[in-house]
Amino acid sequence: MASIGDNSGNEAALARQAEILAQPLTEDRIMANAIRALAIDAVEAAKSGHPGMPMGMADAATALWTRTLKFDAADPTWWDRDRFVLSAGHGSMLLYALLHLTGHEGMGIEQLKTFRQLHSPAAGHPEYHEHPAIEMTTGPLGQGFATAVGMALAERMLAAKFGKSLVDHRTWVVAGDGCLMEGVSHEAAALAGHLKLNKLCVLWDDNSITIDGATGTSTSEDPLKRFAAYGWATRRVDGHNFAELQAALAFAQKSSKPVIIACRTVIGFGAPTKAGTAGSHGAPLGGAEAEAAKRALGWEQLPFVVPEDVYKPWHEAGARGAVTRRAWLKRLAKHPMRAEFERVMQGKLPEGWAEAMSAYKAQLAETKPKLATRQASQKALEVLVPAIPELVGGSADLTGSNLTLVKGMAGVEPGNYAGRYIYYGVREFGMAAAMNGLALHGGLIPYGGTFFVFADYMRPAIRLAALMGVRAIHVLTHDSIGLGEDGPTHQPIEHLASFRAMPNVLTIRPADAIETAEAWEVAVKNTTGPSLLVLSRQGVPALRDVANGNKVARGAYVLAEAEGKRAATIIATGTEVSIAMGARKALAAQGIQVAVVSAPCFELFAKQDAAYQAEVLGDAPRIGVEAACGFGWERWLGANGVFIGMTGFGASAPAEVLYEHFGITEAAVVKAVTSAVNA
Amino acid sequence: MASIGDNSGNEAALARQAEILAQPLTEDRIMANAIRALAIDAVEAAKSGHPGMPMGMADAATALWTRTLKFDAADPTWWDRDRFVLSAGHGSMLLYALLHLTGHEGMGIEQLKTFRQLHSPAAGHPEYHEHPAIEMTTGPLGQGFATAVGMALAERMLAAKFGKSLVDHRTWVVAGDGCLMEGVSHEAAALAGHLKLNKLCVLWDDNSITIDGATGTSTSEDPLKRFAAYGWATRRVDGHNFAELQAALAFAQKSSKPVIIACRTVIGFGAPTKAGTAGSHGAPLGGAEAEAAKRALGWEQLPFVVPEDVYKPWHEAGARGAVTRRAWLKRLAKHPMRAEFERVMQGKLPEGWAEAMSAYKAQLAETKPKLATRQASQKALEVLVPAIPELVGGSADLTGSNLTLVKGMAGVEPGNYAGRYIYYGVREFGMAAAMNGLALHGGLIPYGGTFFVFADYMRPAIRLAALMGVRAIHVLTHDSIGLGEDGPTHQPIEHLASFRAMPNVLTIRPADAIETAEAWEVAVKNTTGPSLLVLSRQGVPALRDVANGNKVARGAYVLAEAEGKRAATIIATGTEVSIAMGARKALAAQGIQVAVVSAPCFELFAKQDAAYQAEVLGDAPRIGVEAACGFGWERWLGANGVFIGMTGFGASAPAEVLYEHFGITEAAVVKAVTSAVNA
Repeated sequence: MASIGDNSGNEAALARQAEILAQPLTEDRIMANAIRALAIDAVEAAKSGHPGMPMGMADAATALWTRTLKFDAADPTWWDRDRFVLSAGHGSMLLYALLHLTGHEGMGIEQLKTFRQLHSPAAGHPEYHEHPAIEMTTGPLGQGFATAVGMALAERMLAAKFGKSLVDHRTWVVAGDGCLMEGVSHEAAALAGHLKLNKLCVLWDDNSITIDGATGTSTSEDPLKRFAAYGWATRRVDGHNFAELQAALAFAQKSSKPVIIACRTVIGFGAPTKAGTAGSHGAPLGGAEAEAAKRALGWEQLPFVVPEDVYKPWHEAGARGAVTRRAWLKRLAKHPMRAEFERVMQGKLPEGWAEAMSAYKAQLAETKPKLATRQASQKALEVLVPAIPELVGGSADLTGSNLTLVKGMAGVEPGNYAGRYIYYGVREFGMAAAMNGLALHGGLIPYGGTFFVFADYMRPAIRLAALMGVRAIHVLTHDSIGLGEDGPTHQPIEHLASFRAMPNVLTIRPADAIETAEAWEVAVKNTTGPSLLVLSRQGVPALRDVANGNKVARGAYVLAEAEGKRAATIIATGTEVSIAMGARKALAAQGIQVAVVSAPCFELFAKQDAAYQAEVLGDAPRIGVEAACGFGWERWLGANGVFIGMTGFGASAPAEVLYEHFGITEAAVVKAVTSAVNA
Repeated sequence: MASIGDNSGNEAALARQAEILAQPLTEDRIMANAIRALAIDAVEAAKSGHPGMPMGMADAATALWTRTLKFDAADPTWWDRDRFVLSAGHGSMLLYALLHLTGHEGMGIEQLKTFRQLHSPAAGHPEYHEHPAIEMTTGPLGQGFATAVGMALAERMLAAKFGKSLVDHRTWVVAGDGCLMEGVSHEAAALAGHLKLNKLCVLWDDNSITIDGATGTSTSEDPLKRFAAYGWATRRVDGHNFAELQAALAFAQKSSKPVIIACRTVIGFGAPTKAGTAGSHGAPLGGAEAEAAKRALGWEQLPFVVPEDVYKPWHEAGARGAVTRRAWLKRLAKHPMRAEFERVMQGKLPEGWAEAMSAYKAQLAETKPKLATRQASQKALEVLVPAIPELVGGSADLTGSNLTLVKGMAGVEPGNYAGRYIYYGVREFGMAAAMNGLALHGGLIPYGGTFFVFADYMRPAIRLAALMGVRAIHVLTHDSIGLGEDGPTHQPIEHLASFRAMPNVLTIRPADAIETAEAWEVAVKNTTGPSLLVLSRQGVPALRDVANGNKVARGAYVLAEAEGKRAATIIATGTEVSIAMGARKALAAQGIQVAVVSAPCFELFAKQDAAYQAEVLGDAPRIGVEAACGFGWERWLGANGVFIGMTGFGASAPAEVLYEHFGITEAAVVKAVTSAVNA
């Protein structure tokens, strides 16, 4: 069975399938077969897709959606609905079929017929925003699960704040073998187990098949034993036995721990030859096999046709939660915290926070503190955290370095979710995914810290945040060779470029305390994507004396204009802006007048109009300074610009030694300017 | 004890420490105290560093290095040595002290005195190449462990090939709580358990402390139970009890499974107030605490002084393996496979492979097949795999999509390591780390496949390969919106830019079958860093008719010169080169003569001299075409260049629909050229 790389027939699975198919058809099975038939038809019509998973998990999904899942198809945005996350996102037709059958608007037969076509809400993988009932974008394996942990945590935190009468729902996940093999499943499961997120339940599609063949080709682990080690409750069921499924779901609803249910299934259930093999996973069954599968299931309908007597119980299931929802709406209407609850769930910022920040910035303009920007970030948080109660922090075990914790924030603890600070552990990817879940759930604005270099560990989750348009704020400290002795493994070089290249991410590297405050303002207001605050370990002088408005919001601006005509323009970011300012002074002493442009956010500057860009960049020769690789700087420096920065990896030494060693100094800038001016 | 975020004193740890310190000093403890003293002194001298881990693990390391570890300090490059990987790389002074005490050349007291200073071999974290006994660069948590899995696998595979008389060693890892919390530890441990890598042993520094405080702040898992679920053997010992440590090491040497030993330790062992707390983790103890610690340990020496009677047993330990090594050298001298063994261990390519590739390319020039470049890659592998026996393949569960498997390659199986193909499972990061280990071990050239978009999952390991200069070859298929219906989660946009920005990586995106063959030639010869082969799902026509030399090796070249004076230069990569060629033809029909430049590898083109670059790029207006974001293209397009590509995420639809939708078409190129020419 488990011979290496074997993708051939699976006799045991076929025998099990035959035995199940020989049983009399029940209403549950007929309802599940509607999912199977729609999945088969949509994949055949699209000529591509993944029929195996929807066919295998149709029974489990039917059990969950018809009796247990709290939802009302009439309003998929109901705040107290259960969340359902299809972590095995390739099985998207499972979700679309469920939405269709339960009567969700916007997922009619015509939408299913356009499965995987341009502008269809039934995209290849579930895409957030394509339909209001799609809780998140899934497809990159493991991340649905890890994000769901954040959703489940959000529920607990909001319940602690607003009470059970407003917040009392569960988070359900369908995950495949691939999800459980991914490393992030470990981080997420360990965090969920630690925090005792008992309202989280994972249905594992335990089908013993991966793309390369039997799971035995590449894995021998016992996942339930592993999850038990994390503090989860575990159950094993026949994934085609409704009684067992219902019993397990009932168990999950009473558990004091997060729950994983191994649903032993036959992938491609119903397909006469491809069931139980990787052959049913990622390609259409093909006309003959598709026909035969429907026959075997007892489904005698034309493609995309569901009989009314099958729609009926499905529509009833879709309306099952209506009473509960109406009762909840009544409770909300008279709840003393209604306004606050609605505000946070709508993602609206509270009154007063902007004024508090303005006052803080005015104070900075006066006191001109020399601070590392990570310290400045902490000071900004000291203003923001009291002003924005939905702001919740955390760090991947670098709290004292990231300076993400401020006074008055208590830690979220197992069983006690009243705190606002999450100790994520050494789990960067798990943290970023959980942050996405906190944001997606609604009601919270998550920020989390790690070293900038370890943004690589969580890059897949940042990408998913960008794709979904989720407000997650990453506090990324120790942003360059300026971190010093820890050496090249800890020194970001290409990270700024790599995130500037990613669509819909704001990568912000502020130069001083005022810019850091402005960066926080931008991040908090950026509701349509993640923001990365890239912050220094080492101190920088105050560079700004005016704090009106928000200059970071324009991406780049003239920090210091040349006295008279510009001989050159020095463009710098973060800690290198003060180097540029030093060079400007030294050059002025030589009679060379240059402007210094601070460019904390390339993405925002790129959005400004051409006139503003031209005004900032000027016509004079341009010199760029950044303690990072220069990839992508050409856009702003033009064809003849000069870049002063890194050309390879860093080294282990004190920061000031490294700046000297790599030639990122005031003297180097002065030399580059004089060369350019004399050229 | 486990109160949230608590970094204060740890009474239980201090009591345990007091009890141990009250015992009479044994030679083992004195030897271990030499490690502690050197770690204290070096960190104090550097005014930064991590004393806690070396002090906590000194006893375990002493037990391992004095009696069990197979090595000879006289030759740290001995091929049959045991590998020792300090996965908790921040504890670098543990390793440096061990190398110093055992008498390794190049790690004298003067080197320890320059700990964390520029050009010191004793860098902040262990850096590969800084000293021959440093097996790999560590610091990014979890990766030492995951890479060691690859080393242990390499040992098994080479033993299967060359026999036990040449290859018979173990791989030892010291890992911390952070390593085990990282997701990659799950992937690596599951793979090692599956493959029954019984010669791998992990010593877990079980000190109950992370940076944010007690491990209980963020984790409640039982790691040994988890490892048992992977099929590992587990043991718990008092990490300060030599008898228990020796017994566990003996157990590990007889195990039929990989082994993890939980060494219960006191972090910062010896420090009178900071022991057992995060306070001893990442900062100098401080003068008084340092002095008091040495006193408590009974170490009455000036800083950096080790008495001769302590050096003596350490030097004996360092020479312990000399006899074994000499016996091995004798066996090697008369071994029938000596020449082949030496060749592969030296990383030299065999005779004949280049000729085989030349013949294959000549054939391509004649037959001009239309192939997806992933198919062309498979065809190149059909030549390379028989010609280069040390080439070993694999995929993260996408074998049939990546086309990484060729005829004659058997799978590596648990207990049978004679195969050359590794089914890594859905574990991209684990795969990339294991590939680094296979390469670092020596004797093998690993390649592995996944979808290009999932290169994000393994980015931290690719970075480490680049930093170490390791020959790992990544086969990254489905390289753009050209993958079609699977949609934006699966469509790389910023990935080319993000890897082009990373130092010491060759990112190669070939345009047709001949370029793909050349890309493989470049990758196989690139011994000083990783190569990424970025390959298409969809077919491309043959574009080249001459296959002499290797044009990819120059990074970019004129594929088709303009007939007469260039009106414009179209620069394209990969699948977009054929679009450029189509546009060239259409433009010629309008009387506009343009050159087409194929630019498969920016990094290699950047290394060419200015004259060649100028010749290729020309003076005419430049148009860039790539189905990706344009970040970084400005360098080659100049200030007035036009880029045709992606500006945001992709979508779910058939490939040809998407190219049309996003305007990456022959017509768009024609339009851009005519605009530029008429400007």
